[in-house]
Amino acid sequence: MERVNAMILSRTGSDVTMIPEVANHLISSGGKRLRPMLTLAMADLCGYQGEGQVKLAASVEFMHTATLLHDDVVDESDMRRGKLAARMLWGNEASVLVGDFLLGQAFKMMVEVGSLRALDILSTAAAVIAEGEVLQLSVAKNTETTEDEYLSVIRGKTAELFAAACEVGPVIAGSSKANEAACRSYGLNLGIAFQLIDDALDYGGVAAKLGKNTGDDFREGKITLPVVLSFRRGSSEERAFWKRTLQDGAIEDGDLEQAQTLMRKHKALEDTIERARHYAKMAKDALGLFPASPMKQALNDAVDFCIARAH
Amino acid sequence: MERVNAMILSRTGSDVTMIPEVANHLISSGGKRLRPMLTLAMADLCGYQGEGQVKLAASVEFMHTATLLHDDVVDESDMRRGKLAARMLWGNEASVLVGDFLLGQAFKMMVEVGSLRALDILSTAAAVIAEGEVLQLSVAKNTETTEDEYLSVIRGKTAELFAAACEVGPVIAGSSKANEAACRSYGLNLGIAFQLIDDALDYGGVAAKLGKNTGDDFREGKITLPVVLSFRRGSSEERAFWKRTLQDGAIEDGDLEQAQTLMRKHKALEDTIERARHYAKMAKDALGLFPASPMKQALNDAVDFCIARAH
Repeated sequence: MERVNAMILSRTGSDVTMIPEVANHLISSGGKRLRPMLTLAMADLCGYQGEGQVKLAASVEFMHTATLLHDDVVDESDMRRGKLAARMLWGNEASVLVGDFLLGQAFKMMVEVGSLRALDILSTAAAVIAEGEVLQLSVAKNTETTEDEYLSVIRGKTAELFAAACEVGPVIAGSSKANEAACRSYGLNLGIAFQLIDDALDYGGVAAKLGKNTGDDFREGKITLPVVLSFRRGSSEERAFWKRTLQDGAIEDGDLEQAQTLMRKHKALEDTIERARHYAKMAKDALGLFPASPMKQALNDAVDFCIARAH
Repeated sequence: MERVNAMILSRTGSDVTMIPEVANHLISSGGKRLRPMLTLAMADLCGYQGEGQVKLAASVEFMHTATLLHDDVVDESDMRRGKLAARMLWGNEASVLVGDFLLGQAFKMMVEVGSLRALDILSTAAAVIAEGEVLQLSVAKNTETTEDEYLSVIRGKTAELFAAACEVGPVIAGSSKANEAACRSYGLNLGIAFQLIDDALDYGGVAAKLGKNTGDDFREGKITLPVVLSFRRGSSEERAFWKRTLQDGAIEDGDLEQAQTLMRKHKALEDTIERARHYAKMAKDALGLFPASPMKQALNDAVDFCIARAH
């Protein structure tokens, strides 16, 4: 990961000083670097001996960072990872364009690695992610969104990059098709579980306690699984509450607490976590093909850790 | 359902006497008529007052029957629902062509109902089902199939028709988009749960007892979720067993019992049922939008019944 971090820093360099400023504002803001770690882990799991995994991992993180920069503009977010969003400091135009620059750099690094299949997988992912974001726009603020529709959104916006980050590992290692499919499946299902847990955490997790980062989704009117479940399980008065707050954006003092109360009443957070557990189990079974090793153990532990965050 | 059954019988009529013979051999062989019942139930749930649901329900059953006739040819099956398969009595050609006749009749009935949207939904389903069958051919006998790949197969071959059967109900009732999506989601997830339970039952369910219909999938070398899980969780000797029996088709006396022993060892049947439970929960939550009614209760009970079959 040290080499990946060094690669990330060197590739944000530009004579246009605003580019490294904007990029590093976000890149150095304490992201978990989960996606590039998955690329390194899968390359290792499949016995890869070369150097290509470092650039691919950096590419994956750049794609993720570009998405975040663009998301903040689309969502008109003020904050990101507890800091002011880049767009608040440098404006929307800079956020959009530096995102594009990072996507371009990501593709340059992929080309340098020289694996056409890895390029295919990551560029397909870039298209699917964008498609997922557009789908999210179209379901945005619609409290009647079904769980299936919501799953399609998070498959696109979150799980696809996890899947691609994992799949390129066996690809550059020249591993079997079965291993490629297994790694992809692990990433896809881990990504879904990860996003569902994030959704539950945004309302305080099982404890439903208010923390400094709770309530962002609520304030932004995002329809996530805890809302989908609460809305469907709720009375017509409760549905009117969700429509007023999320659909119409008319949020008053005490509404977030009311949202949490309704979620507690309908076990919406517990069941969101329970649903996440299903995908977590699928992720672990996907890796069953690989013989026991410390790396496989670490990947299984990562799944458990993802679920444990909610508690 | 009586009117649907009468419609089914009247529409298998033809001057070519082989057609009603072949069609009724299968149609009168004690299928559960689950799919047409879903169409009737959803039309009722959405307050439909007309007559179109009867022909759409019969169409859905014809589509299902056509698939079974074609499947038996593709799988070279000797038996179906405890009776000789139609192809054993009238030959493969008759099975294929009577299947095509039933598909044609199904479309004729849909056209008579006159809802272009219902036609669109059911004809799309017909294409997706065929696509699912081709996908199944391509993963057939591959013991390294991932759970995700297997889910894609059953979404196509089973869940899509359940989804379409449910979706046309609100469509002819002129119900809201949200209700259409809810009914479709119920059907899709019930279909997945139903197929997973079928897969577990084919190895005897949780009791893993041998019954008269157990072992069909094993003998035909079908890769289903209990196999996917046992293969991934198994040792290399165990994987060699699955490859010999399912991939190479070299099945010896006692192999089915050995398959069941391995499934018991790895909790593959319990976990297949547990996975089915996840989709069952999604199906129930999908119907949350509808107010309480005896029909809604019956649809929720149908989900529980589907899972309870495995015990």
